[in-house]
Amino acid sequence: MTFRATVLTLYPEMFPGPLGVSLAGRAQAEGKWSLETVQIRDFAIDKHRTVDDTPAGGGAGMVLRVDVLAAAIDHARLGNPEAPVIAMTPRGKPLSQARVRELAQGPGAIVLCGRFEGFDERIFEGRAVEEVSVGDIILSGGEPAAIMLLDACIRLLPGVMGAASSGTEESFENGLLEYPHYTRPTTWEGRTIPEVLRSGDHAKIAGWRKSQSEIDTRSRRPDLWERHEGARVPPASDARRKKKELDQ
Amino acid sequence: MTFRATVLTLYPEMFPGPLGVSLAGRAQAEGKWSLETVQIRDFAIDKHRTVDDTPAGGGAGMVLRVDVLAAAIDHARLGNPEAPVIAMTPRGKPLSQARVRELAQGPGAIVLCGRFEGFDERIFEGRAVEEVSVGDIILSGGEPAAIMLLDACIRLLPGVMGAASSGTEESFENGLLEYPHYTRPTTWEGRTIPEVLRSGDHAKIAGWRKSQSEIDTRSRRPDLWERHEGARVPPASDARRKKKELDQ
Repeated sequence: MTFRATVLTLYPEMFPGPLGVSLAGRAQAEGKWSLETVQIRDFAIDKHRTVDDTPAGGGAGMVLRVDVLAAAIDHARLGNPEAPVIAMTPRGKPLSQARVRELAQGPGAIVLCGRFEGFDERIFEGRAVEEVSVGDIILSGGEPAAIMLLDACIRLLPGVMGAASSGTEESFENGLLEYPHYTRPTTWEGRTIPEVLRSGDHAKIAGWRKSQSEIDTRSRRPDLWERHEGARVPPASDARRKKKELDQ
Repeated sequence: MTFRATVLTLYPEMFPGPLGVSLAGRAQAEGKWSLETVQIRDFAIDKHRTVDDTPAGGGAGMVLRVDVLAAAIDHARLGNPEAPVIAMTPRGKPLSQARVRELAQGPGAIVLCGRFEGFDERIFEGRAVEEVSVGDIILSGGEPAAIMLLDACIRLLPGVMGAASSGTEESFENGLLEYPHYTRPTTWEGRTIPEVLRSGDHAKIAGWRKSQSEIDTRSRRPDLWERHEGARVPPASDARRKKKELDQ
């Protein structure tokens, strides 16, 4: 089965970009995924091919027209009918590795890239579009985010990564950051690889890695750690109720 | 002043990629930012030009050698001495719009892209390297993340965006998601632009936008909302202490 990516954009020339090189590029050449771009401007309805207009209520920037977006999405759906439609937007749900894994197991994705101030909000009411964010930053458009999303999916497609095991023991796959890595040389500028990793004692090594992963997550990403711990005890709903009582 | 981007990568051909088009491409042509790529492999020390080796302690994948990375970083620093060195890694600190704004006001960035299982951890002890993450997902390499980071910086450089005001009233700039946008046509498939936005009453419009921004942040991103509220009252440390007392 081929993972089918359809990208709706005003800049089709941005694709495949980095996805045409290395792992993703080879996988595309081998037919493991396919890429089609759809020029949103082709769905403009006036002779000037207008895709945007000024924001209702005033303000800077331009907003992508809902009628043009809907026509582009409807067209893309005809060509890739099973795939979910995903809009890259900072207002969306933060992309998780779990969602990436789901997408990679599915038929593909129709990815909608915004520009300017964003999309007319009615597109999310009038069409089934999943709003996805890749970080709390603002880009010049959704294209770099779409490339990130697709890259994350492609590496998980069957046969794309060399070693099948590479991919399960990584950051976020178990809700924690991955442990730190080391390789030769054993000593560099006076810094030596931790002794346990050179011990050959596989149980000890696994224990050290698990503990490092926990230590690093706790100190670097207290938000992840809290979610990880919350998934164990106590149930989040309990914690929230207790906090609410306290606040009163 | 030109913002100088130096990208350390095993795949220089991935650049400029989407950064060569549209807003970023024009800005590069106008000299508002410059891009140099450094091939990490050029700093290998053996005749096979090896850049990676197997992980100490065993496991799948390959780890980038610290001596090769250090040589590549030291070289990049000579050419771009004032810029911070940023490694794209899922173990890093999540990139924020505030950090993007700081970087855009600075001399540029040296961006280190990993591949395989990642970097030998000693590079972060032996060199001043900031570890930055762009989302809790795993990519095939740091290159798509580097493109995102640079795109976010470039749009903020002086003279790059058309309207100076575009850029301050956006998601995350005030710790909240941006309000929803609408534009013509007024009615589409029976859905009408909210009446307040068509009222011409600027105070009412501003009030509606502020309230929508708060409502959407609270429902879509409780994590952002909590941080936003925590920044006001009560102090986070108080809340945490109270919660701790309760848990006992």
